[in-house]
Amino acid sequence: MSSRSTRYKPKSGWRRKWFTVIYEADTPGGKLFDIILLILILFSVLTVMLETVSFIKIKYGSTLLMIEWILTGFFTIEYILRLIITTRPGKYALSFMGVIDLLAIIPTYIAFFFAGSSYLLTIRALRLIRVFRILKLTRFIGEAQTLSLAMKNSRYKITVFMVSVTAIVTIIGTVLYMVEGPEHGFNSIPKSIYWAIVTLTTVGYGDISPQTALGQFIASIVMILGYAIIAVPTGIVSVEMNKAQKKNDFKTCPKCHNSYTPIDAHFCPECGTNIEEYEENKESEKA
Amino acid sequence: MSSRSTRYKPKSGWRRKWFTVIYEADTPGGKLFDIILLILILFSVLTVMLETVSFIKIKYGSTLLMIEWILTGFFTIEYILRLIITTRPGKYALSFMGVIDLLAIIPTYIAFFFAGSSYLLTIRALRLIRVFRILKLTRFIGEAQTLSLAMKNSRYKITVFMVSVTAIVTIIGTVLYMVEGPEHGFNSIPKSIYWAIVTLTTVGYGDISPQTALGQFIASIVMILGYAIIAVPTGIVSVEMNKAQKKNDFKTCPKCHNSYTPIDAHFCPECGTNIEEYEENKESEKA
Amino acid sequence: MSSRSTRYKPKSGWRRKWFTVIYEADTPGGKLFDIILLILILFSVLTVMLETVSFIKIKYGSTLLMIEWILTGFFTIEYILRLIITTRPGKYALSFMGVIDLLAIIPTYIAFFFAGSSYLLTIRALRLIRVFRILKLTRFIGEAQTLSLAMKNSRYKITVFMVSVTAIVTIIGTVLYMVEGPEHGFNSIPKSIYWAIVTLTTVGYGDISPQTALGQFIASIVMILGYAIIAVPTGIVSVEMNKAQKKNDFKTCPKCHNSYTPIDAHFCPECGTNIEEYEENKESEKA
Amino acid sequence: MSSRSTRYKPKSGWRRKWFTVIYEADTPGGKLFDIILLILILFSVLTVMLETVSFIKIKYGSTLLMIEWILTGFFTIEYILRLIITTRPGKYALSFMGVIDLLAIIPTYIAFFFAGSSYLLTIRALRLIRVFRILKLTRFIGEAQTLSLAMKNSRYKITVFMVSVTAIVTIIGTVLYMVEGPEHGFNSIPKSIYWAIVTLTTVGYGDISPQTALGQFIASIVMILGYAIIAVPTGIVSVEMNKAQKKNDFKTCPKCHNSYTPIDAHFCPECGTNIEEYEENKESEKA
Repeated sequence: MSSRSTRYKPKSGWRRKWFTVIYEADTPGGKLFDIILLILILFSVLTVMLETVSFIKIKYGSTLLMIEWILTGFFTIEYILRLIITTRPGKYALSFMGVIDLLAIIPTYIAFFFAGSSYLLTIRALRLIRVFRILKLTRFIGEAQTLSLAMKNSRYKITVFMVSVTAIVTIIGTVLYMVEGPEHGFNSIPKSIYWAIVTLTTVGYGDISPQTALGQFIASIVMILGYAIIAVPTGIVSVEMNKAQKKNDFKTCPKCHNSYTPIDAHFCPECGTNIEEYEENKESEKA
Repeated sequence: MSSRSTRYKPKSGWRRKWFTVIYEADTPGGKLFDIILLILILFSVLTVMLETVSFIKIKYGSTLLMIEWILTGFFTIEYILRLIITTRPGKYALSFMGVIDLLAIIPTYIAFFFAGSSYLLTIRALRLIRVFRILKLTRFIGEAQTLSLAMKNSRYKITVFMVSVTAIVTIIGTVLYMVEGPEHGFNSIPKSIYWAIVTLTTVGYGDISPQTALGQFIASIVMILGYAIIAVPTGIVSVEMNKAQKKNDFKTCPKCHNSYTPIDAHFCPECGTNIEEYEENKESEKA
Repeated sequence: MSSRSTRYKPKSGWRRKWFTVIYEADTPGGKLFDIILLILILFSVLTVMLETVSFIKIKYGSTLLMIEWILTGFFTIEYILRLIITTRPGKYALSFMGVIDLLAIIPTYIAFFFAGSSYLLTIRALRLIRVFRILKLTRFIGEAQTLSLAMKNSRYKITVFMVSVTAIVTIIGTVLYMVEGPEHGFNSIPKSIYWAIVTLTTVGYGDISPQTALGQFIASIVMILGYAIIAVPTGIVSVEMNKAQKKNDFKTCPKCHNSYTPIDAHFCPECGTNIEEYEENKESEKA
Repeated sequence: MSSRSTRYKPKSGWRRKWFTVIYEADTPGGKLFDIILLILILFSVLTVMLETVSFIKIKYGSTLLMIEWILTGFFTIEYILRLIITTRPGKYALSFMGVIDLLAIIPTYIAFFFAGSSYLLTIRALRLIRVFRILKLTRFIGEAQTLSLAMKNSRYKITVFMVSVTAIVTIIGTVLYMVEGPEHGFNSIPKSIYWAIVTLTTVGYGDISPQTALGQFIASIVMILGYAIIAVPTGIVSVEMNKAQKKNDFKTCPKCHNSYTPIDAHFCPECGTNIEEYEENKESEKA
């Protein structure tokens, strides 16, 4: 993130100086700015939350509203500054973080027209992702990439899984609707499907639950089924993570093709070949 | 699926043309047909669902019924067409998808005699599996095969697991029935077993829950047990998926056709042939 | 099981013939006996269960009682026969299955003195484990051994885990007891610990749940903690199963020490050595 | 633990003798002391728990109080002894176990001033960790280290995961608050976030649950999301445990001390030394 955005760093002047502070976290100034920003974000999310707690609103309502306005003012200025000091404002405005930064200030202004929209300010929570910039950035990005690579690689398996689960849940919901009926809380098929999801995911609120013996028998089968089904996504992700991990740990020896050569080995543990030398020779042979 | 069904493709004429549209998804016409079909299926499942929501039924009941009849008519024509244009109608009628296609139209007709049977139309949800045909088919089938292979290979372990869980649940249910008794909702042993399943699978509706100190103590042990037990199917599936995945780590020996040759092996572990040499010789022989 | 028990097979006579039928499942007679036995066990467990459903008891109470007595009679005869026809009756009587066979008939007789003890007859469910004998025995025993080996190997890790969970649950329970107090259902520390277990295992009955803001905040942390903790036993079992599995799949080449040699390989896939020859030579060298 | 603390063992005298008993578990005396201590700890935790069960308190309140005082007296003496007999009392007082030992006696004394603080005595449960000392120590410490190493290595991935979950939960909570509102139990955003956590972790108390169709639809998506999300920490821990386990698959090169040498390697991947030759030479040099 940091390395990518430096491409848009102004060559000189006050904009360059501010760019270092606002977009980067390597200088003391940049770090301080990011820490203050995070505290303000946390503080503003907390303000929005507390505003919905009735007894707090009655007592401190106007104070909270004032804080919200001041913070929104600050975030608005910050957003405009970000647009000004980069050489490619359009790029920032359309980036993931740019869109979130905008969404994090709009609701306050909309609240003039639609009361209640200010609750959407909790979207500011997403801005907390910036925390990774202050901490050792590269390491976290690496971990996040391992996670998202594992997720990406399993997308076909997960699609197969999700379509199957949707079909299963629809049919279970219908059967329970026919068995239990509206008199036991299974008012309609959509509501029965909601129950089936609540059960299969082992959430189990208990707001709707089968009352008849047959319904409870079917429900038992569904639960044990859910027991087995929950193992599937876990298995998928485990396998993919293992693979993503292994890619970082081993390479293949160019001579004996031993695929369990540690990634940073100079000599193959199987045949003892000096790997760098071998590859240089190979290249010179080609030439 | 696609590749298999092409064997039953008529040699020529209008039936061949229609076969391409209805059974396949490679031509623009075939793709369009499948997309329209999926939308109609989704739409018809939705219609059946909404019919059970009382306030919608009162308002739009007759409209929904009409839509249901039109869609069932369309699906009936589609089913008959499928039978006509393939060279082996019996093969289709008895295939998995063929049976589902039939089950997806019958309930409307049965509803003449048994009111309520039309809810079974949600079985149409299973027809959505056709979605894989439109998307990149082979990839999804590959993933589905990995999943189902993993499931198939773990069937013995899962049988052992299931029989054990059934026995455990029966005994826990009996003990809780004796400890808590009908006055705390544990009316009968079957109901207590239902409670044991609800607890062991961590669903936990709370419609029945132990009230006595002893009952709660036993329940605590059951829950912690369930904690450990839930790890077992997960472990089974993980291991099997890893193995199914690993199938990609093996190749087949070009000489003895041993399919468990490690992907990076120089010598076949079955016949000892030097694989690279053998393949080079083969190629030079061809030339 | 089968192979072990044949050691106690009488040499000849009617006892030998009956031994084949009752203890073994390889002959048609033995298979038939085991299938009939399993059906009777299932039937008797069902009878005991139904006896506790009040409306069934009122209607068919005496019939069910009669069935129970007949079946117990049959099982008693079977138990005595098993003792007579083996050459080592003590060995059987003290074996796992022998104890269960005895426990499965005693409660009916005790019910003369203590009403209600007959519910314990559901212990017969454990006799269903015999089902593995009818199905392809060896394969199931193999799978059961993989499962139990994985369990056995992880016993130290699981002990560490369990002691930690017990300590955590005690402290969480105490804190919630102090925060919520008896007026919100947290009557005593043991009950609060029960709540902590219900929450940490994600069962979540909802019979007791925090009402104060602070209590709900702490509960949220506990739940997210439980989220992470549930991963631990799963991870433990997965790793152990993987190891137990791998032991069955690979051996180490005696020459190049490549540890990924398929278990049934004749030639090492890494160095091409004929493994059997190599080992014979080695042994002859030693001699 | 044991090996480390021996450094602080007095050279001679009665303090050395007592050190062996109190700090160590290798001699019969030391083992006996630890077993008695564990029993007393368990007993005292039980006493504190029972004191909160109202009907027991009424009957045996004064007895329980007396037991608590006697046990606290014993633990106080033990704590002072521990300080006296070690050569570095400060080291012990500030160690993890030392702090817990102190926290386990203070609440009784504080209870003079603040009634109710004595419940905190359940912190004594943490002292049960000493149990590992009596059992085969090293093995358990090894397992605990594998577990905690796996935990430590996954801390970056878990941080990424936790920040994401916090952001997701905040936004879901806000949406549900706006959809359902205070009339369905979603009183405030913090309470809605509490609901989101209860749902995403599949605990599902059911004290708050969505009532509107839209709310139930969103909740269904959240649950299925939670289904997928729960796979992530499991996957993380599995992978890390696998890696921690694999540490057993590596040895250290005798020449360059590279600790990532595969256990069956012939040549060190770092310095290329032929390991067997090197070790033979070393041995012949010694001889």
